[in-house]
Amino acid sequence: MMDRVTVLTGGVGGAKLVLGLCHALPADNITAIVNTGDDFTHLGLAVSPDIDTLLYTLAGKANPVQGWGRADESWNFMEAVRSLGGVDWFALGDGDLALHVLRTQRLRQGEALSAIVAGFAASWGIRARILPMSDDPVATRVMTDAGEIDFQHYFVKLRCAPKVRQIRFAGAQAARGAPGVVEALRDERSRAIVIAPSNPFLSVDPILAVPSIRQALLETRVPVVAVSPVVGGEAVKGPTAKIMREMELEVSACTVARHYGELLDGMLVDARDPPTSLDVPEARADTLMKTLEDRIRVARAALELADSLRKVR
Amino acid sequence: MMDRVTVLTGGVGGAKLVLGLCHALPADNITAIVNTGDDFTHLGLAVSPDIDTLLYTLAGKANPVQGWGRADESWNFMEAVRSLGGVDWFALGDGDLALHVLRTQRLRQGEALSAIVAGFAASWGIRARILPMSDDPVATRVMTDAGEIDFQHYFVKLRCAPKVRQIRFAGAQAARGAPGVVEALRDERSRAIVIAPSNPFLSVDPILAVPSIRQALLETRVPVVAVSPVVGGEAVKGPTAKIMREMELEVSACTVARHYGELLDGMLVDARDPPTSLDVPEARADTLMKTLEDRIRVARAALELADSLRKVR
Repeated sequence: MMDRVTVLTGGVGGAKLVLGLCHALPADNITAIVNTGDDFTHLGLAVSPDIDTLLYTLAGKANPVQGWGRADESWNFMEAVRSLGGVDWFALGDGDLALHVLRTQRLRQGEALSAIVAGFAASWGIRARILPMSDDPVATRVMTDAGEIDFQHYFVKLRCAPKVRQIRFAGAQAARGAPGVVEALRDERSRAIVIAPSNPFLSVDPILAVPSIRQALLETRVPVVAVSPVVGGEAVKGPTAKIMREMELEVSACTVARHYGELLDGMLVDARDPPTSLDVPEARADTLMKTLEDRIRVARAALELADSLRKVR
Repeated sequence: MMDRVTVLTGGVGGAKLVLGLCHALPADNITAIVNTGDDFTHLGLAVSPDIDTLLYTLAGKANPVQGWGRADESWNFMEAVRSLGGVDWFALGDGDLALHVLRTQRLRQGEALSAIVAGFAASWGIRARILPMSDDPVATRVMTDAGEIDFQHYFVKLRCAPKVRQIRFAGAQAARGAPGVVEALRDERSRAIVIAPSNPFLSVDPILAVPSIRQALLETRVPVVAVSPVVGGEAVKGPTAKIMREMELEVSACTVARHYGELLDGMLVDARDPPTSLDVPEARADTLMKTLEDRIRVARAALELADSLRKVR
């Protein structure tokens, strides 16, 4: 068995798990398939929030407090934008702008997002593979009691205030997996496919909405395990729990496992959670990832669960 | 006679004179027609160096030491660009990026450069009018012993090292004056049209290469006076003197006056210069502009020269 692992991930929480995996195993063995449904154009710049969180986290440049953006960031650009009457609800740090400006330039020159991201990762000495789920545009759109809203407007500008009724992923049906994505999922020599503890509805679902990715997950013989984003009846971070309640779902690992349904072979559930009755095997661990040690521990627990599933298959 | 004054100007030196004029007269009366031959696209961003120097200078945001860019600038963007293998020979400051990003976005949305610049100036409370010479693209290209080179490559990347043989302004023949430019030059109620002590070949010639601007200057009855960029046989700043020598011209106010030829009605020559024999009336003053008082003094001297010419006509 090879120690190759593929992770489906959104931003902050998922990036922590990917970092843990990169320490639990040789980092070259890790492939992260990253949500691009949050990508949008702001001030004319192509912004890929989840991709960039992966880049910053794996390069050791992430801001450890706010969970997004760069450490030691400065904000002179935003201040000047504000002085010129430009929109300022989405904060772009001075150093962070480099990714957006270079990405925008290269996209306009016809380069694929996946190739651009691979170049960024190489420049920063990142050994894990960071793959956008697709080079084709997919846009997460949130149907709310205030109408249909672009993801970043919902998430950042409106701070998730409107009540969510439904979420759709414009362009997903026609999107192809980026080069390497389906190959990684179909690589039978892999040890595990891990669904990170990212928001199932906003961060993982856009990935699963790409038909070739869903198909590969349904057909693979590699164990697919999810790390539950719910800890003791609450989501660790972000609007996961709020959205689940608005969609009249119980905030529990069980709901998340049912949501992934037949794609899933097992789930890592937080040790604090009440007893569950999942349709798939579960393992328990402290899934809170505050320190690097936590991240490595959760990564190892997810891998052990996958290993146990492989044995019984 | 109205106190309206129109200035043809490049960046640094010209901006100083425009600032002096804004203090010598009500700033609302000043129209600066600014060279855009230096404009270029860098990292996918539309950069207008001379326009921006005017904006920063008149808004009190200019860096007083380097002569371009913003005061109190930070450079985290450039450092991140470098870490990603991006080109770094043209430095874009963090705060400075706001102008480039917003300009690029608005140009792509179809807005004219002149309208964008007017918006920037209004946001910063600038009362003088800053007009790009044209909304149509004009590109200064330098024919050198190392071949034909884009202006910024010649000026910044190669630090003016190649020997200049000739300079051309691609697109100038088809370019129209931006809205307000020809009107300002043809406004017979003006007190003066001033050619700033910018580089005649690199900064003023691109403006004069726009046919409707040249025609308006030839036909106006308003006195056209130049402030000589030569002080004691040397240019105050930049490659003016070097270029004049390479083009086998004597580095003198006389050469500059002859270069402007029939467009010119008078020239303000530095008090330190040797006696000249210009084809137009001259006045003398200390034309070095180190302090704000210097700038106001030079502005007043140029206006007095223009007034004297009006009387004798």
